[in-house]
Amino acid sequence: MENYQKQSAYRVMCSEVNRCVGQRINLQGWVHRIRQLGKIAFLHIRDRSGIIQCVLEGEWAQKSLSLESVVAVKGEVVAAEKSPGGFEVIVQSLEVLNQSESPLPFEVNKDRLNVNLDTMLDHRVLSLRNQQEQVTFKVQSVLAGAFRDYLTGQGFMQIFTPKIVAAGAEGGANVFSIEYFEQKAYLAQSPQFYKQMMVGAGYERVFEIAPVYRAEEHNTSRHLNEYTSLDLEMGFIASEEELMNLEEDMLRYMLQAVRVNCREELKIIKVEVPEIGSIPRLTVAEAQQILQEQYGKSSPKGDLDPEGERLICHYFEEKENSAFVFLTRYPREIRPMYAMPAADNAEETASFDLLFKGLEITTGGQRIHNHKQLIESIKGRGMNPESFSNYTDVFKYGMPPHGGLAIGLERLTSKLLDQTNVRLSSAFPRDRHRLTP
Amino acid sequence: MENYQKQSAYRVMCSEVNRCVGQRINLQGWVHRIRQLGKIAFLHIRDRSGIIQCVLEGEWAQKSLSLESVVAVKGEVVAAEKSPGGFEVIVQSLEVLNQSESPLPFEVNKDRLNVNLDTMLDHRVLSLRNQQEQVTFKVQSVLAGAFRDYLTGQGFMQIFTPKIVAAGAEGGANVFSIEYFEQKAYLAQSPQFYKQMMVGAGYERVFEIAPVYRAEEHNTSRHLNEYTSLDLEMGFIASEEELMNLEEDMLRYMLQAVRVNCREELKIIKVEVPEIGSIPRLTVAEAQQILQEQYGKSSPKGDLDPEGERLICHYFEEKENSAFVFLTRYPREIRPMYAMPAADNAEETASFDLLFKGLEITTGGQRIHNHKQLIESIKGRGMNPESFSNYTDVFKYGMPPHGGLAIGLERLTSKLLDQTNVRLSSAFPRDRHRLTP
Repeated sequence: MENYQKQSAYRVMCSEVNRCVGQRINLQGWVHRIRQLGKIAFLHIRDRSGIIQCVLEGEWAQKSLSLESVVAVKGEVVAAEKSPGGFEVIVQSLEVLNQSESPLPFEVNKDRLNVNLDTMLDHRVLSLRNQQEQVTFKVQSVLAGAFRDYLTGQGFMQIFTPKIVAAGAEGGANVFSIEYFEQKAYLAQSPQFYKQMMVGAGYERVFEIAPVYRAEEHNTSRHLNEYTSLDLEMGFIASEEELMNLEEDMLRYMLQAVRVNCREELKIIKVEVPEIGSIPRLTVAEAQQILQEQYGKSSPKGDLDPEGERLICHYFEEKENSAFVFLTRYPREIRPMYAMPAADNAEETASFDLLFKGLEITTGGQRIHNHKQLIESIKGRGMNPESFSNYTDVFKYGMPPHGGLAIGLERLTSKLLDQTNVRLSSAFPRDRHRLTP
Repeated sequence: MENYQKQSAYRVMCSEVNRCVGQRINLQGWVHRIRQLGKIAFLHIRDRSGIIQCVLEGEWAQKSLSLESVVAVKGEVVAAEKSPGGFEVIVQSLEVLNQSESPLPFEVNKDRLNVNLDTMLDHRVLSLRNQQEQVTFKVQSVLAGAFRDYLTGQGFMQIFTPKIVAAGAEGGANVFSIEYFEQKAYLAQSPQFYKQMMVGAGYERVFEIAPVYRAEEHNTSRHLNEYTSLDLEMGFIASEEELMNLEEDMLRYMLQAVRVNCREELKIIKVEVPEIGSIPRLTVAEAQQILQEQYGKSSPKGDLDPEGERLICHYFEEKENSAFVFLTRYPREIRPMYAMPAADNAEETASFDLLFKGLEITTGGQRIHNHKQLIESIKGRGMNPESFSNYTDVFKYGMPPHGGLAIGLERLTSKLLDQTNVRLSSAFPRDRHRLTP
């Protein structure tokens, strides 16, 4: 223990070894790989910053080490042309801090894991140690941070609203129910009502980064029952165009943050982050027409189906080199009761979706701010305004024109990294059947 | 609408009016106050940045305006000695964007709201418009941002872990249960297991800002059933001292961020942010002894009760001018099964609490990292290790020495602002009885 404390104080990260030639350093990390070559052994140590080659000689070369054990190493850094990074560490002493069981359920140190999705998720902590998998969550952390930085710079503040709610936001379907002492409660499907209320409470510009819950039966490669929603809402907007302008600029900022902060990570997975120019904006009706004319594909009324979303993205990828497409003017009947009717067509809404590489990653739009209009809209859905009074009462006392949007963080990450399943962008996904680990 | 769009493009915030003398500007905000004086009227407009006085003359002075209505104003900025900020806006035109109902349930524009807590929470959007109340959530946003900034600078990354879990983290009591399709599930009491697993997954240093859920029957001024937890966990620590060093430095950073970014807000509520020097660290036993000697107060076994926490903080406030106190070495029997036994006394743990102005705002400590030791610890509590296998299996494959801590964001905010009830630091609190708004 004493020993370890001393080491800890001077720990050098694997990525910093190249700056320590000729010095005696301490490393701590996992046994990534080990190769015995007669009287010497090559030990690759992995920490959060990367991997470095260590050379074990003499008695140290004979030490039995299991893969993924946690070790602390003292040694001298030397330049070594043949070593992967051009440097290696000649080990002077080695301590096993925690021995790993052997064999592992699967090989962690492969370039790409050779196991199916279920095995990967069953042994999540091991699969996450794989360098390819690690990239996902580093990128995700950067995306969330950039979302917050961008919005803070635009005068937004972060809010924290309850996920335990008395009623579902959109009217009751697909909610998980909870026993809340003597009462029945639900898990919030989105912070929609609360972020609007915070705009109305005078904060004007708010964002939230928090889990949302959808009790959908879907069990597809693009659905999660719990996911992280990047939400924003802003007051005093003139139209939904302002929201699309904001999102375009924000995504540009977020992707640039990934390029800058995840340079090494992107090399590992060989993914190129797309440039965002001016994102095409077209109405659902226009998109449907393109699908019909270009691909002979018909669409459901007022919407695109998943194949339509893929094709329209393909079309604009080819035509305008854009991985993103805004679809606007969704009809009122498929948008929630709070969606603002379009100024020039009451059957349409001032709303939009953003598609990215064939998948919807954002829903947004201007909201109704007039109390009477909101009550009428609720009634028009055959719902009882009374059951929304905690929300609608707010609109009696001066709600500004406003709107907002939400980005599914796992979907954005997953598409950015060209993954085939959104579960790969969730550290511990919750789906129709999976509750563990 | 057209009109409004044009205005929107050139909106000036109330706090920027002083830079626009002689210019014609557009303002948008709420009717904070209005005072008719014969042929002129003084209108105070409030937006997210502050309040500015506008002067209505001629026909505009006769316009009937209800308090809290949302308005857009065009006018010319003039210097005016008698005006609150030294400047005012001579109104040339005024448009009501959304009319507020009158009368309001209570007066919003008072310096301090003159209503009880329940009324305040029942009409949350209105009470939040009060300038004193607004301060709370601006400060809270800054605290959360500074937590993230500090940790990012220390090599931490943000994680997002599930709140729907198959079992409670600490063994089953005080959890809310959910119907998860055909399965029974629970709301996470903390991200404890998951943040440890992310450390073990190779990320080493992780933090999470997310809701946690406690189904506690308590209905006191310091309990919430849903609150925001600022969690961190780090690998390769030598002892819990490193965690206390980190928290001390981090809190210094966070409070400085409040001082810098909330200068105006702090003036409104007349609160001084405490300086953090070296936070006193003493064992629970030492604290109990001080309580006994100084105040004749006895404590429950191995712990302090709420009054003891208040007194020990009072003692160090007087003695060392410190608003914070670390209590260390809690006995094993009152700490969770994952708490690391102290190196020199197996009956104590390498854990700590941080008290702030008499209230516990942090629990932290080093965790057990050896698989066998963890299993024994679980058995020692009379629990079945099998039911924790999703968590404990991880420890078979190389878990580094590690530890972490969590800060209750609402408690920190509430104490920082000298509030009497933690509910005031939750935008929409959830307690024993309150589920709305």
